[in-house]
Amino acid sequence: MANERSKERTKKSRQGPTLLFDLDGTLIDSVYQHILAWREALEQVGMLFSNAAIHRRIGMSGDLIVRSFVRDSGRKLNPKEIEYLKKLHADAYKKREGEIRLLPGAHDLLSVLSRESIPTAIGTSSKREDAQAPLDMLGVSRGITVVTADEVANAKPAPDLFLTCAERLGVDIKDCMVVGDSTWDILAAQRARTLGVGLLSGGFSEDELLRAGAYRVYRDPADLITHLDELGVQPAE
Amino acid sequence: MANERSKERTKKSRQGPTLLFDLDGTLIDSVYQHILAWREALEQVGMLFSNAAIHRRIGMSGDLIVRSFVRDSGRKLNPKEIEYLKKLHADAYKKREGEIRLLPGAHDLLSVLSRESIPTAIGTSSKREDAQAPLDMLGVSRGITVVTADEVANAKPAPDLFLTCAERLGVDIKDCMVVGDSTWDILAAQRARTLGVGLLSGGFSEDELLRAGAYRVYRDPADLITHLDELGVQPAE
Repeated sequence: MANERSKERTKKSRQGPTLLFDLDGTLIDSVYQHILAWREALEQVGMLFSNAAIHRRIGMSGDLIVRSFVRDSGRKLNPKEIEYLKKLHADAYKKREGEIRLLPGAHDLLSVLSRESIPTAIGTSSKREDAQAPLDMLGVSRGITVVTADEVANAKPAPDLFLTCAERLGVDIKDCMVVGDSTWDILAAQRARTLGVGLLSGGFSEDELLRAGAYRVYRDPADLITHLDELGVQPAE
Repeated sequence: MANERSKERTKKSRQGPTLLFDLDGTLIDSVYQHILAWREALEQVGMLFSNAAIHRRIGMSGDLIVRSFVRDSGRKLNPKEIEYLKKLHADAYKKREGEIRLLPGAHDLLSVLSRESIPTAIGTSSKREDAQAPLDMLGVSRGITVVTADEVANAKPAPDLFLTCAERLGVDIKDCMVVGDSTWDILAAQRARTLGVGLLSGGFSEDELLRAGAYRVYRDPADLITHLDELGVQPAE
C-alpha cells in the first residue's frame, strides 16, 4: 500500500506544476486603464494621488485599495462614501474598456497549457461580473477554473483565491505555482506557501517582484511560453 | 589673486547645487497618458506592445523611442511612416490632455526654489510646442529656463538638454543635480557627469532608478521638498 502510494506520488510529480494565474496585468493588459480610472474616481471625491502612487496598489482587493487611499489621504469615508468611490472607479473603468487588449502571448499560453493537459486556473481580485469581459476576450470562459473576489472571504494579497483554485482543481497548493504581475500576487503565493512567478506586463519592476518573493520573472505571457521548461512544465516539441 | 579665487569658490559652493528638472513624470503627471497614446498609435500601424513595455521607454527622445519600437517589432518603417507614427502619438496624446495634472508638490517645489533663489531649469525631451501647456499649468513659463528637444542635437538619454540648461544658467554642470523620474534622465545625468536624483512619480521603481545611477530617490516633488537638505539645498525654516 505504502509502496503503491509512493509510486503514485512519483508519477504525479512528473506532471509538473499546476499553474494558477492572475488576470489583470498577467493575461489582460488592463492595469493602466485601472490606474487612470482610479485617478479619475479619487479626484471626484477630492483625493489627489499621482498615477504612479495608484499603480503600485493595483492588484490588491477593492476593500484594501480603498483603505490605503483613505489612510494616505488622511480623509475619513463612511461605508456609503466607500461604496460610492468604488462605483466611480467601476464607471471610469467601463469608459476605458474599449482600450483593453490581451497581453502578448496570453491566448497562446492558455492554448499550450490546455493542449498539454497542464491543469490551469485563474484567481482574480475582480468580481465575477467584471471578470466576464476579459475572460471572453481570452476565449476561455467555460474551459477554465476561475475564482473571483466574490467567492472568497479575502482577495489578494490574502491567499484565499489561489487556495480555492487549487481546491477546485483537486491539487495540492504545494504542487502549484502562482503567475502574477503584482507584488500582491506574489505575496498571496507566499502566504499560500507556493512558488510565485512574476510577469513584468503590469508595470511592476523585476526587482519589486523578486523582493516580494518571485521565484522567476518573465516579460509577459509570450516570454513565459518560451520558458515553461524553467518551471518544470514541458510542452511538446 | 589665487587666494581671492579660492575665497570665491568657497563662497560659491555654499549656495548648494543648481537643480535641473525633467518635466513629464517629474513635475507633470503625464507619463500614463503618454503610454496609452503610444499604444493607440502603435496599434494603428499594426505594432503590438503592452503598456508596460511602452512604459519603460517613456522619457527618451522621440527618435529613439520610435527606433526601439521598430527594432522590437521586427518591422521596417520608412522616414515618412516614422513621421506618421509620431503624429499618431501626438494626436492620441492631445485627446488625453484634459486628464493631465500637476504632480503633488510640483508647484510648491518650484516656488520654494524660487523664493530661496536656488537656480533652477527644466530640460525636456518634448518639443517646445508640446511643453508649453504643462509649463503653463506649472505657472512658470516665463520665470524659468527651459530647454526643449528642438533646441539640442540629441534629447535624452544624451546629456545635451541638461548641459544646455547649465550653460544658459551660467553654472558649471558639476555644480548641478538632475531630478527625473526615468532611467533616461539618470543616464543623461551620468553622461553629463553630474548627480541624478530619482522620483518615483513616473512609475519607474526605486531599484531601476538606483541601478541607473540615481544618488537618491524620492516619492514625488512633495517628498523632495521635505528632503531638499539631503541634496545640500537649504530652504528657509
